[in-house]
Amino acid sequence: MIIKRDLETCFSPALYEPERHAGSIVVVIDILRATSAICTAFENGAVSVIPVATIPEAREYKEKGYLVAAERDGYVLDFADFGNSPFNFTPEKVAGKTIVYSTTNGTGIIKIASSAGFIIIGSFLNIRALTEWISKQERNVVLFCAGWKNRFNLEDTICAGAIAERLMSTSLYSTICDSTHAALDLWSLAKKDIPGYIEKVAQRSRLRDKRLDDCIPFCLTMDYTSKIPVIRNDILVNMDF
Amino acid sequence: MIIKRDLETCFSPALYEPERHAGSIVVVIDILRATSAICTAFENGAVSVIPVATIPEAREYKEKGYLVAAERDGYVLDFADFGNSPFNFTPEKVAGKTIVYSTTNGTGIIKIASSAGFIIIGSFLNIRALTEWISKQERNVVLFCAGWKNRFNLEDTICAGAIAERLMSTSLYSTICDSTHAALDLWSLAKKDIPGYIEKVAQRSRLRDKRLDDCIPFCLTMDYTSKIPVIRNDILVNMDF
Repeated sequence: MIIKRDLETCFSPALYEPERHAGSIVVVIDILRATSAICTAFENGAVSVIPVATIPEAREYKEKGYLVAAERDGYVLDFADFGNSPFNFTPEKVAGKTIVYSTTNGTGIIKIASSAGFIIIGSFLNIRALTEWISKQERNVVLFCAGWKNRFNLEDTICAGAIAERLMSTSLYSTICDSTHAALDLWSLAKKDIPGYIEKVAQRSRLRDKRLDDCIPFCLTMDYTSKIPVIRNDILVNMDF
Repeated sequence: MIIKRDLETCFSPALYEPERHAGSIVVVIDILRATSAICTAFENGAVSVIPVATIPEAREYKEKGYLVAAERDGYVLDFADFGNSPFNFTPEKVAGKTIVYSTTNGTGIIKIASSAGFIIIGSFLNIRALTEWISKQERNVVLFCAGWKNRFNLEDTICAGAIAERLMSTSLYSTICDSTHAALDLWSLAKKDIPGYIEKVAQRSRLRDKRLDDCIPFCLTMDYTSKIPVIRNDILVNMDF
């Protein structure tokens, strides 16, 4: 009898249970916009990304001469080089560079997940590479949605559902997690028309109100990159495999 | 221009924001089994239900001579008169009585919601009475799912979705809450075959493993009662209206 690997989904940092997920692969998902931007940075040649949770940490790195991407609630912090639209992370800006990165939701949860076996960065942009790599590992998996200020959000949930659908289709995983079932079901509705589905999400309105929604169609693009950013010694690097 | 009332959904006690919901109507939902049992108790003539969060409190009431319903993880506590199957709350046992009630998830969240304007008990059993009463009040509404040990659960979410569908259909409410959209969408899938949908939920398996699943079809029954249990001075009573 084959023992299947567990697949779980966590909808918010407030629901994460570090002790239960020690040793698991944790996929951090914050598609609008942090994890999409990180995937883009590596596709465009970044060497590493240092996620920092707080503004003072980001400022300290800036003073040391680092390239800093930092935003809160969509607004670029005054000392930062740029914010977290994936469109900022161009080859001209990031190739060969280390970027210090701090966002409202996404970078904080990388810290929260630090007891995991592997922390990797997930988005639609790298979904095929990500799920193929995961399925080769003999580990349980947690899909960790960043949400928004501890609240549930739909866009990360449907991305989790898309990842879960691919993993479950391998027959290597089982789940008794209601959040995973919900993510799969919501994805089954969303996938027929992803941009249409995304219209109703709160973050869509927040970004539109700030005229920051230009990157949404890009963030919903599947397989733009085969890079899988992974945490090693608290720093995101491109996975060698 | 009519200002619509806000409709929000909260998936877990860990996600509840008391300061934001002060003054709202909070509907506590824990359909397997606490809120279904409470609705049944009032239908069968109970005068009041005293929700207590902890086991020592429940024991203290028992020592004072109260009728006590108390369980943890589905098991009846040794000192209690019975657990939280709705089938325990028969007219013979509860008519004319005050019941002290403590459960794994449901009764604790009644305490968490105590800053709300109104705290009422929701389930499929009283869904019509509940939604008709709510829509007559000029207040924002929070659908507060008990979840399971702070985790998201599907059964409370689909009940929240069913309540949200009825409220939204009045055109008196608007929502920018992703959790409400998710609940509505999951309910749209579940309502075609509610018992079939419930088969996959984790609590279904937990109750089956303990042979406590006999009450599930009953808990999915719409409009068994028109009672709306409401908190007044920390005690659940039947709403006069």
